[in-house]
Order: sequence, then C-alpha cells, then structure tokens
Amino acid sequence: MISRRAFVGALVATAWRPSSVRGLPAVQIDAARLRRRLETLSTFGRPAGGTFGDGVSRTAYSDADVEGRRYVMNEMKAARLQPRIDAAGNIFARRAGTDDGLKPILFGSHIDSVPNGGNFDGDLGSLSALAVLETLDAAGIRTRHPLEIVVWAHEEGFAFGRGLACSRIAAGEITPADLDEVWNGMRRADAIRRIGGNPDRIHDAIRPKGSHHCYIELHIEQGGTLERTRTAIGVVEGIVAIDKYDATITGFANHAGTTPIADRHDALLAAAHLTVAVREAVTRLPGRQVGTVGHMEVTPNSPNVIPGLARISIELRDLSPSKLVTMMDDIRARAKEIAAATQTTIEFRKMMGAAPAEATGEVQRAIERSAESYGLGFARLPSGAGHDAQMMALLGPMGMIFVPSIGGISHSPKERTDWDDCARGANVLLGTVLEMDRLA
Amino acid sequence: MISRRAFVGALVATAWRPSSVRGLPAVQIDAARLRRRLETLSTFGRPAGGTFGDGVSRTAYSDADVEGRRYVMNEMKAARLQPRIDAAGNIFARRAGTDDGLKPILFGSHIDSVPNGGNFDGDLGSLSALAVLETLDAAGIRTRHPLEIVVWAHEEGFAFGRGLACSRIAAGEITPADLDEVWNGMRRADAIRRIGGNPDRIHDAIRPKGSHHCYIELHIEQGGTLERTRTAIGVVEGIVAIDKYDATITGFANHAGTTPIADRHDALLAAAHLTVAVREAVTRLPGRQVGTVGHMEVTPNSPNVIPGLARISIELRDLSPSKLVTMMDDIRARAKEIAAATQTTIEFRKMMGAAPAEATGEVQRAIERSAESYGLGFARLPSGAGHDAQMMALLGPMGMIFVPSIGGISHSPKERTDWDDCARGANVLLGTVLEMDRLA
Repeated sequence: MISRRAFVGALVATAWRPSSVRGLPAVQIDAARLRRRLETLSTFGRPAGGTFGDGVSRTAYSDADVEGRRYVMNEMKAARLQPRIDAAGNIFARRAGTDDGLKPILFGSHIDSVPNGGNFDGDLGSLSALAVLETLDAAGIRTRHPLEIVVWAHEEGFAFGRGLACSRIAAGEITPADLDEVWNGMRRADAIRRIGGNPDRIHDAIRPKGSHHCYIELHIEQGGTLERTRTAIGVVEGIVAIDKYDATITGFANHAGTTPIADRHDALLAAAHLTVAVREAVTRLPGRQVGTVGHMEVTPNSPNVIPGLARISIELRDLSPSKLVTMMDDIRARAKEIAAATQTTIEFRKMMGAAPAEATGEVQRAIERSAESYGLGFARLPSGAGHDAQMMALLGPMGMIFVPSIGGISHSPKERTDWDDCARGANVLLGTVLEMDRLA
Repeated sequence: MISRRAFVGALVATAWRPSSVRGLPAVQIDAARLRRRLETLSTFGRPAGGTFGDGVSRTAYSDADVEGRRYVMNEMKAARLQPRIDAAGNIFARRAGTDDGLKPILFGSHIDSVPNGGNFDGDLGSLSALAVLETLDAAGIRTRHPLEIVVWAHEEGFAFGRGLACSRIAAGEITPADLDEVWNGMRRADAIRRIGGNPDRIHDAIRPKGSHHCYIELHIEQGGTLERTRTAIGVVEGIVAIDKYDATITGFANHAGTTPIADRHDALLAAAHLTVAVREAVTRLPGRQVGTVGHMEVTPNSPNVIPGLARISIELRDLSPSKLVTMMDDIRARAKEIAAATQTTIEFRKMMGAAPAEATGEVQRAIERSAESYGLGFARLPSGAGHDAQMMALLGPMGMIFVPSIGGISHSPKERTDWDDCARGANVLLGTVLEMDRLA
C-alpha cells in the first residue's frame, strides 16, 4: 500500500505538470490519433455494411476479438513496445522506469464487447493507455516506476456467463473447473488458446498481491450522471456491491374465462406487484443505489390462462453492502403482503453476492489533482458496473477515471462519448500516472 | 324462435315429469353406466402408466381423439343408434320423434381436450347426451320432436389456435383458407379427413339457420361459483363477450448498474404497473366480469439489463360488451399515467373481439323447471368460457346446463366433478329435452 507520508511528499513535485488552470496543459495526448485508432478498432466486429455509429459485436475469443487484439498489438509494436500475452490471454506491454527496482504502475482496460455493444466501452481505456506511453516518449518524460499497460481478455460477461474472466485469473481467482466452462460455444481452455494464452500453465497468469504500484483504468461512465451534471471527469469511489436474487411466485393456473376474480391465484399479478415493490424499496432511501427487475418468466404464459407460476430476477447495487440488506429486507416484507393479497406464495433465493471494491483514496486524489492540472471539473461517484479494476483491487491500490457517456447509454450501438471527452480522459489518465509515479 | 304462447302451453303438460320435490324422480339416467363410460373414455389419451386422476391429452385429430371417437360411436351403435360423421368431422346420431315434421332437439358436447386436460370437459355432455336417449328408450318415452345428439369435433383451441372449429363450420362460418390452416402439425383439411370428414364437401356440414328446435349442452362449470355457493345446477345466461388486446410498452434498454433510477425507461416496470391497473379496472365495477394478463414477454429479459420492451396480453370478458369498453377505457386512461411516470410509451392493439352469445330465455326456463323436477337447486350465471353452444346460438334457441367443478379447476388433470353431480347434470339434461319437447 502507498503510505500516507509518500502521498503527502508527492504533492511537492510539479515538474511534469501541465500549465493547468493558468493556461493550456503542457503534456497532452494526441487526440486525433486516439480517435483514429478507436475508429479503426471499431471495424473489427462491426456489422456488415455498417459505419462507426453502428456498434460492434466483438465478443471474447471471437474472430473479431482475435483480429482486434492483433491490431492493438501491432499498434503497440509500432510504438516500439513488445507486447506479451500471459497464460490467460491478457496482453501486457512494459516501458522501463528510471528505477526498475520499483513496482510497475499498471493501467489499461479491455477491447472485447457485448454482442451489439458500443465502440467506447473498454476500447477507450485500452487505447488511451497506449497513448499515454507514446505521449511520454514524445515529451521525453521518464517515470521512476516502470509503466505497464494491459488489455484484459474477456471482460464482458453480458448474457453469456461470468465476465471479468481473465483479470479474475490474474487476481488468482481460478479453479480447474473454470477452464472447462463453455462460453460462447467454446470450452474456456480452447478459447484461451485461441487468443494466444496457455491454459496448461494458467497459474503463470496469476499476479502476486502487491506486485504493482497501483492499477488505474479509464472508462466511459455508462451512466448519465456526468453528462447531466456537466462534469468532465468522474473519480470513481469504488465499484458497487451487487446482490442478485430470484423470486419464485407460485399461484395456480386456471381458466381465464371461468375463474372468478376472487378465486384467482395469479402469479403474474403477484410478480407485477413485486416488481413495483422493488422499485419502491430502492427509491425510498436517499442515495445512488439502484435495483432492477430485468428478467421475468411466466408459466404457462398464455393469454387465456391465469398464470400459475412466475419468476423474476432482483438485482440490487450500492457501494454499501448494508444498504443492500436493508433494501432486501424491505422487499421481503412487501412480498409477504403481496403473497397474502394475491393468494400466492413468494420464495426468494440468493443467486449471487459480490462485495464492493473500494477505490484507493490516494489514487482518487491523484486523479483529482490530474483533472485540476488540466482545468477539468471532476466529481466522485460510484461505478454501478463491474470492471477489471475490481479484480485488481484485490492485489493493490486501484483507481478509475470516468468520462461522460452521452445519454448514459452503453452496451448498445448507440454508446457515445464526445471525442473531446475521450481526449480529456486520456490526458487525466496520463496525469494520474505521473501523479502516482511521485508516490513511493 | 319458440313463441311465448307455446312456452306457456308447455307448463301444463307434466306426464313425463319425475315426482320432483314430492319424492324421488321417476326418470333417471343410469349413473353407474355414465361413470363407467367417462372412465373408459378417459383411457384414450391418458398419460402412460396413469390412472383416471391423471388427466388426458386428447387434442383434436390426434390418435387418441380418433380412438376416443371410435369408442363413442361404438357405444352409440350398442344403443341401436346409427352415428354419422358430417363433412366437418362432427358426429351425429338421431332418434325419431312421433312427429318427424318437427325440427330436432339437438344436444351434446365434444370429447377432444386441451393438452394435459381433464376428464369431464366435453366428455360429460357428450356421454350424457347418449345416456338421455338410452334412458328414454328404457322408460319407453317417445318425444314429439326428433332428438339428435352430437359430438362436435375440435372444440378446444387452447394454446394452439382457434377453438370451436367444427361447430363453427356447422354454423356456416367457414372460409377456404380455414382448410389450409395448420393446426397441431396438420393441415386442417388433412386433419378433418383423418376423423372421417370430407373437406372437399365441407359446405355440406353447414346447418341452415332454424334447422333445429333448440340446442342444449351440459358442461362442467370450469369455475368455482356453483361449488362455493353449493348450487347443484347452473343455468347459463349466455357466453360472455371477449375482447383481447396486446399492449406494447417501449422503454429503453440500458445497463442495470450504471443507469440512475431517474434516467430509466423501464418497460417491465411499466408493464408491471399496467398489469396491476388491469386488475384494478376490472374489480372496481360491480359484477362478474373478469380480466386477465396471462402473457408477458420482456426484451432483452436479462437480469442486468433494464428492459427496453415488454408486451402483455389483456383479455376482458363479460356478458355486456359495453362493460368491456368501459373497462378498456379505464385501462387506457391508467396507461397514460403509467407511461408518463415511467418515461415509456404504451400502445394497444385489439387482437380479437367476440360478441356474447345469449342463452334463449325459454331454454333457460326449461332447464330451471327440469332442475326443480329433480329437486335440485339452481342459479343463473354467465359462462366465462367459450362453448360450441355459442356457435349454435347463431342458428336458433340455445341453452346450457352447468354442474359444479371441484375447486373450479379445469383444463388441468386436476379437473373433477363429483359423480353425483355428473348424474344430476345428465338428469337435468334429460328433463330439459322433455321440457323443450312440449314447446311447438
């Protein structure tokens, strides 16, 4: 961990600092090149006949993923870097520091996408990491710490299974069964081999705890808070805890014409009340917590049969795990009333619980100083989405930089971030790396 | 139509009448034989290894249907009747009257079932019709009118398509396209041929309007009203009107973790509110109307994505079509508020509208007099389910007799009617036929 003393000492050094609020910053990434690369990367997995605005399907291990990874590695080589692929398929490239006895500063993101995803989620952080190294080269700036950029493999799990797969392996969370898991039609071991990893030596991919100075990730917000509040930079406080439940509502299927209202045990009606109750339980507390019923399954699901069975998913997210418990207690209490009123039974099953990953205070403050240097407004906020950063939080100090998502849209071809915001984010990443370099 | 004068005249004649409230009825069907036949019929389409309580899958035109029909026709022949199959596949058998210039009294039901259906729906009315003819033979009673019993083909449409298919043809509602319709994996024309019909001469199956004296159908209630009110006999006032709508709720799919509550356009939440609103609109009016949301479809239906699209079915039933309109107006008004509150749009499409089929007053009163004769309590009630009787209502006077369904369960292996109630229903059918025979 970074000591408090080292952090205070870092505030003194300002040699690298751009002119900040007093004028234009001195060190800036090449915004045009960053944009060009984002546009080129978007062609791998783009729908046939589409253009940049039409999104991308670059699911992990797909041909588009393999080709996109090759493109990024070629760009690294063009920047005189030597990319290596670890046993899990993650891509790393290293730039030496002046003191190679120091631990590397690790930063990057991923380039795989959800099916029909957008062109900024992951791509921006990955290509900005490369831009940071290039900008330092061009400016002749050497850091004390080695710098290591990373493109994590298989970050997205959307609709297919578990995400954060390969940063999870790097964090040491791997069991032999993981390699047998079938994902997107491929056995995970075969899939990893497909992108240049080595499943037979998968444990080589584990990064020991404390093996890097810190991990930093630039990412689009994926929500609408920064845009709505006209804030350039989001300083992530942490990645929220997630509790997932299934609710099974059992009624009795019967004829929709012949069964009087009073005799009904309508599972869908109960599920509807419960869906409304989840929203009420989430919104009656102050704060940024969210809760979602995203999935509903009705049996027999026929217009002329009173539904006998319904299942819904309940997903609750907040930085505070105790708030998740409070909300769920509220939902359970409301469910009891609903079951009684609808003559049904409601049972809950906890499907998943993920602890929050707090961003390190020192890294948050480094991001804030970097944003100030570039004259950019910033605000702290939680990340409602999961990120590779949460796996890295298991190994050492971690921080994340968010830039605005237009309309808060992500995991969609309509995902957009203003090109100027992309460049701002890359600059703040650069500044944060330099800020963190000052800490022992 | 039966004239009022003829009806009044009928009240005078009592020769056939059982001893009624003054003692045991004189003319009773053979309850043991009726039960035995219901049990035998239940073997055609019974699940492998099952017993009587395990329900039946005797979908129209299936092997089980073909075999069940053969069994019933053999029983008819054993009763010295000559069953004939019309061009649509409906089975008829006729008993001469003393005045063959009079129109026949037509009564019966169907023997096809829904998949995983019960052993009383249709079967009771079909086999009781045969029992009525046998009982009259045994008692040496001749009617003035010819009597015609019927087993309608393809009554059930549950989950597959349009029901009441072959009584619909008899009522003249047939288009050439109907024969090309694919049902249960078969072209309708081939299916009709399979049960002995002749699709090439399908129009021969049309019964001219006014070609029978009246149509009477005994059926299980399929609801729980008679059982709850401990009423032996239901006198059907009519078959309810049905209006079916689809509601399409359009929101915007987005990340369930990153999208603040205020920014959501959650189509499933709106659908849940609308489902609750349908129930409220149905129950705020006095009466026996029902309304059901039986079907819900959510897109993308993933626990970690805010649903962008939802579709629900809305089905409203009541004897009064204007009440259906009132309820739907109420639902539309509530939908407007829901759409505004959830930042979604809600569109309705009318999928189907079926007019009510009123039971003829004279036939209702004949059923009531018959029930009184047997010392049975009765009550008027609507039929929430569709029946072949509603097609026959297009051709002439119509009435239906209901007997209690235990627990109000039907279209289920759990469908049950007490054997004594089966016999009571068959007796009331017998009495009603004799009552109607007295009317010119």
